[in-house]
Amino acid sequence: MHSDMEGVVEKLATKNGGKIVLLVADGLGGLPDPKTGLTELETARTPNLDALAAEGVTGLHLPMPPGITPGSGPAHMALFGYDPIRYEIGRGVLEALGIGFDLWKGDVAVRLNFATVDGEGRLTDRRAGRIPTEKCVELAAKLDAIELPGVQKFVRPVKEHRAALVLRGGGLAGGIADTDPQRTGVPPLPVVAATKEQEKTAALLTLFLEKSRGILKGEPKANALTMRGIAMRDSIPTFEERFKLNAAAIAEYPMYRGVAGLVGMKVLPGVDSPEAIAQVLKGAFADYDFFFVHFKKTDTMGEDGNFEGKVAACERLDALIPSVVAVNPDVLVVTGDHSTPSCLGSHSWHAVPVLICGRSARRDAVRAFGESACLAGGLGTIRAVDVMPLALAHAGRLAKFGA
Amino acid sequence: MHSDMEGVVEKLATKNGGKIVLLVADGLGGLPDPKTGLTELETARTPNLDALAAEGVTGLHLPMPPGITPGSGPAHMALFGYDPIRYEIGRGVLEALGIGFDLWKGDVAVRLNFATVDGEGRLTDRRAGRIPTEKCVELAAKLDAIELPGVQKFVRPVKEHRAALVLRGGGLAGGIADTDPQRTGVPPLPVVAATKEQEKTAALLTLFLEKSRGILKGEPKANALTMRGIAMRDSIPTFEERFKLNAAAIAEYPMYRGVAGLVGMKVLPGVDSPEAIAQVLKGAFADYDFFFVHFKKTDTMGEDGNFEGKVAACERLDALIPSVVAVNPDVLVVTGDHSTPSCLGSHSWHAVPVLICGRSARRDAVRAFGESACLAGGLGTIRAVDVMPLALAHAGRLAKFGA
Repeated sequence: MHSDMEGVVEKLATKNGGKIVLLVADGLGGLPDPKTGLTELETARTPNLDALAAEGVTGLHLPMPPGITPGSGPAHMALFGYDPIRYEIGRGVLEALGIGFDLWKGDVAVRLNFATVDGEGRLTDRRAGRIPTEKCVELAAKLDAIELPGVQKFVRPVKEHRAALVLRGGGLAGGIADTDPQRTGVPPLPVVAATKEQEKTAALLTLFLEKSRGILKGEPKANALTMRGIAMRDSIPTFEERFKLNAAAIAEYPMYRGVAGLVGMKVLPGVDSPEAIAQVLKGAFADYDFFFVHFKKTDTMGEDGNFEGKVAACERLDALIPSVVAVNPDVLVVTGDHSTPSCLGSHSWHAVPVLICGRSARRDAVRAFGESACLAGGLGTIRAVDVMPLALAHAGRLAKFGA
Repeated sequence: MHSDMEGVVEKLATKNGGKIVLLVADGLGGLPDPKTGLTELETARTPNLDALAAEGVTGLHLPMPPGITPGSGPAHMALFGYDPIRYEIGRGVLEALGIGFDLWKGDVAVRLNFATVDGEGRLTDRRAGRIPTEKCVELAAKLDAIELPGVQKFVRPVKEHRAALVLRGGGLAGGIADTDPQRTGVPPLPVVAATKEQEKTAALLTLFLEKSRGILKGEPKANALTMRGIAMRDSIPTFEERFKLNAAAIAEYPMYRGVAGLVGMKVLPGVDSPEAIAQVLKGAFADYDFFFVHFKKTDTMGEDGNFEGKVAACERLDALIPSVVAVNPDVLVVTGDHSTPSCLGSHSWHAVPVLICGRSARRDAVRAFGESACLAGGLGTIRAVDVMPLALAHAGRLAKFGA
């Protein structure tokens, strides 16, 4: 690794060059079925992806350092060329983005957990017995009526015991420590400002918690709140600033639309079917330099532990390829954000197949798009954050370093 | 990556050990001819290189982080084991080295651009209509007569609108911002010292610009100057300091002779033909621990977009091998500094084949020296800065780390 790789790429990025499509099949990587020795992607019939693998250069990418399993936020940030450790997005921000909340620069977002406390205010259940989502919706609506001086405030339900709080107004600050003590038997921690800049925000959150007590005091389970991931969304340089790319996103799920918006992509109408994605891509192709296209089903099936379902999702992904190729991007990258092996039923740290097509791709011997085949690919095993610089290079968008 | 790899290598380097030859074929890496699927190197008949590949260990190296195309300066610095981002050489220094100017420690080198300004001093052409090189030679000679108090000063023509200025004397400093505003319609920027140390140099450069106005005012096109890459050449530790190597360079082109000199190599007579290189190498072999041998033709042909010419250059490189092997170095490394695919006609970011021969090389299955074959090599894909530590290790010149 080099001193300041991200800074170097930013300095070399040029305004003109070819068009790039980054097609991300969520959770694409898998593990083999012990009976066949083939992963979901390798089991699937994927003639279009295999043709791209034969035409372009292939390899694997690691979303994070070896052994680290990323969440969806960091995995996408890495693919977008942002070191996911340096650009750690606050949980509050991800929670708000995940429900499709339109966060503005300067907003502070907080993840709220409904919790149970005893008569002395000590936590007895940090998740309020996982109250049903309907209860969460009802309580969030009540909390949304709380008024705070000088700022706007939004409380939105997420799921079960989880909700999101957003403050909007001047002079706010993130980075305030969680009030969740991470154990029961003690009261929630107070909201403490560690810097001068955090004082106003800490005072407002403290007032919010005071007012919430009156609203929640009759509740059998959700009679208290803790706050986590108190964070702002305004410190992330955009694709335009970093890569001089006018970028657009085609994604259906709020979380991915949110992360794309966070890096300054124009978020196009959210669609999911191969046909609809193709149509939106074609319609917008003239207007942008870069397209992030998100395909969700591969992850959903992996999370469900459904090997056959994930095989079918890979075939659905393959069916999307001809319409993407039809818009004739100068560079086409197909990969996943992380692995979601169906035998684990969850995200994992395993390397993810990646292929890059373009006129300057150094063709390798790989003729099929799969975890084992890509091991022999010309890219070798790279880091996810290296995918964007490579895409820019193949699009002729990176100037030479030095003379 | 490790905290301070360079520091570790420096601590472990020992004074005694075998002799190393690093043979660099400039721009060696290529891209395949679509008709044959073979690159220039793979198309060439290279029995000697193939025999070395079979005998030694092979792989590929990345000159810079993935996607970044290096200039010749950074690419050579990386192969010499210097992080090219950390040791970024100023454009002024490279310009002076490129014309064979003998830069001393403490010198400040500046790239001068002849430019055209209007009656109000606003730039109308930042390259003075690319004046002919003869005009550049004439004007550089006139500017060379300018006297500055307390320092020596050299103005040398480079090519067309480009010239080099070198200041020599005590108390100078580099790192001063360019005066080229990078656009027309505005005057050149003043020379501004950002630190106390830069004040003397900034004052001298300002005085130089004032005096140049009288000389250039009658010129129809080249009636002004801008300054870029104001830099010193004194902050680079030598091969002796870093690796305890008494090193020599055999290179014909000024730029490579310059970069070799920059890291403290003894620059031997510049020759180009395989026969002459062999003779110089043989004659000097007893006197040095390390030889950098530079072969230029592969890059020239790639830059010219001449696939067949580059194939021929690879075969010429191959013809040089027996005489290099004949001096019997303990370690022989053959590689390129970067790729120059003839289909792109320019440097590129693609990985470069590398082979290392020596008694401790762990032989791999690779039997041909080429981009595809080396993908299966025992070295894998390494970074260019890792080549030197490997060469030192194979030469028995790196002590064990820890007990």
